[in-house]
Amino acid sequence: MSELLDLAGIFVFALSGALMGVRKRLDVVGMAVLAEITALGGGLVRDLILNVRPAAFQSLGYVLVPLAATVIVFFWHPHVARVMPAILVLDAAGLGLFCAVGTAKAMEYGLSPLHASLLGVTSAVGGGMLRDVLAGEIPTLLYDRQLYAVPALVGSAAMAGLSAYGLHGWPATLAAAVLAFGLRIAAMRRNWRAPLARGVGD
Amino acid sequence: MSELLDLAGIFVFALSGALMGVRKRLDVVGMAVLAEITALGGGLVRDLILNVRPAAFQSLGYVLVPLAATVIVFFWHPHVARVMPAILVLDAAGLGLFCAVGTAKAMEYGLSPLHASLLGVTSAVGGGMLRDVLAGEIPTLLYDRQLYAVPALVGSAAMAGLSAYGLHGWPATLAAAVLAFGLRIAAMRRNWRAPLARGVGD
Amino acid sequence: MSELLDLAGIFVFALSGALMGVRKRLDVVGMAVLAEITALGGGLVRDLILNVRPAAFQSLGYVLVPLAATVIVFFWHPHVARVMPAILVLDAAGLGLFCAVGTAKAMEYGLSPLHASLLGVTSAVGGGMLRDVLAGEIPTLLYDRQLYAVPALVGSAAMAGLSAYGLHGWPATLAAAVLAFGLRIAAMRRNWRAPLARGVGD
Repeated sequence: MSELLDLAGIFVFALSGALMGVRKRLDVVGMAVLAEITALGGGLVRDLILNVRPAAFQSLGYVLVPLAATVIVFFWHPHVARVMPAILVLDAAGLGLFCAVGTAKAMEYGLSPLHASLLGVTSAVGGGMLRDVLAGEIPTLLYDRQLYAVPALVGSAAMAGLSAYGLHGWPATLAAAVLAFGLRIAAMRRNWRAPLARGVGD
Repeated sequence: MSELLDLAGIFVFALSGALMGVRKRLDVVGMAVLAEITALGGGLVRDLILNVRPAAFQSLGYVLVPLAATVIVFFWHPHVARVMPAILVLDAAGLGLFCAVGTAKAMEYGLSPLHASLLGVTSAVGGGMLRDVLAGEIPTLLYDRQLYAVPALVGSAAMAGLSAYGLHGWPATLAAAVLAFGLRIAAMRRNWRAPLARGVGD
Repeated sequence: MSELLDLAGIFVFALSGALMGVRKRLDVVGMAVLAEITALGGGLVRDLILNVRPAAFQSLGYVLVPLAATVIVFFWHPHVARVMPAILVLDAAGLGLFCAVGTAKAMEYGLSPLHASLLGVTSAVGGGMLRDVLAGEIPTLLYDRQLYAVPALVGSAAMAGLSAYGLHGWPATLAAAVLAFGLRIAAMRRNWRAPLARGVGD
């Protein structure tokens, strides 16, 4: 169950990576590299910090799903771009799932709730940051004022709280993921934005 | 004592990250992310290479101090910018401290003096390099000809030498940090510059 | 023998890093930093993922060879640039060697053939990607349509296959390296190119 949700998150992140490749006019190899790094980068950083063998280098699906996403974007990218609003919803789902799963794993490995939340957010946003840096852009996460990291942080904190009270397992993970997902969707719908520093002006 | 010096170094590096965020017109979330990565990135890379759980994910202060720096810059950044000369002095102090502490830790974990020095420099300059790359710029370290890495390298080498002769503990660390700090200040005052390759011309 | 080939690969990658430094008008310190990261970055990422102490922080040669490459480029870079065609051939040799050595090491540490191949490619192309990102450019690997990662992938897969059948040791490594090298040379000679996504057009 949790593995399936994980692969769904990897799939949508990989789609966003491959689409960035199309936008930058990269060839199919460049698209595949961006798809893999976008999908697996966040979890990779998480596992390096936890000092465990990265999940991406143990599971077959983790490596193959981004290739499937690349093939889909390669042949049908105008259609993929047309369903971009749907993809943004899926991306929100991926964000929610990754922050919850990442935080849960960090708690398992003995991090404090604060540090587990931080690592959960890192695993949720890390892949997208790597995608943008490799594509020669300032990470959307830094630049776009619409809330993205904050919903992930709230979801991670909820997961860490539940876990600290002994509630782990997939129902707790799903609840935290849904919370982050809902907040991200609300941020998109209502255009919730983070403030600029005083005097920088809109 | 050494913990306090460490937090001071983290604080000034975080200030430089948050100020970069203001310069790039990032919102408060982007500022906080840049502040955290600038302050903690170098030590994170050091600890990953040493194969130990990163200090940033074990200490409360390491995570909270960059947030405090972000709040300060958010509300008072014109003042922070006005005291930039003072900040450059603090940055030199952070540089000195990080290279000495990083080298000492690397010696503890059994690296040779040469490799420990290299890792000390990495931990001192790594956060700033990540800050610049994420902000879409070529790292100042590479671009600016005024000596920055070299003072850190001299301080690291001094620390490695002292440590190889059994002199560790905070007095040795402080001595090496002061040496790097002094050289960096001298490089700023007298504009000591590294040469360009033959024929590239000034 | 294998150590010597390894150092040769490091040397040519370091040359390409230092030359990038000249092209970007960096001073000698920036050149040395780029040379070190280009030469050692791929193997560093490989060893972090395998969760072992990075080879770059245990061997003297690994650290000194990039410095030697920097000195050569610093004094004789117009000549180095003139022999760039020869350097591209050496780079192909470095690519072949790194993918074979990286895959063999990954198999030794118990990764599956698929994951070992992926890590072999990562170690072969990682340094060059870091070089380009630090120099403020989109990685050549992503941008240039001429096949570069694919020859490395074929060589890695061959190494993984040989290793899975009990054939390791330097003859097998050399065979896989020669295969990747030959394919890369052929890709340069005949300008083998990867396709763009449908509708992006040439």
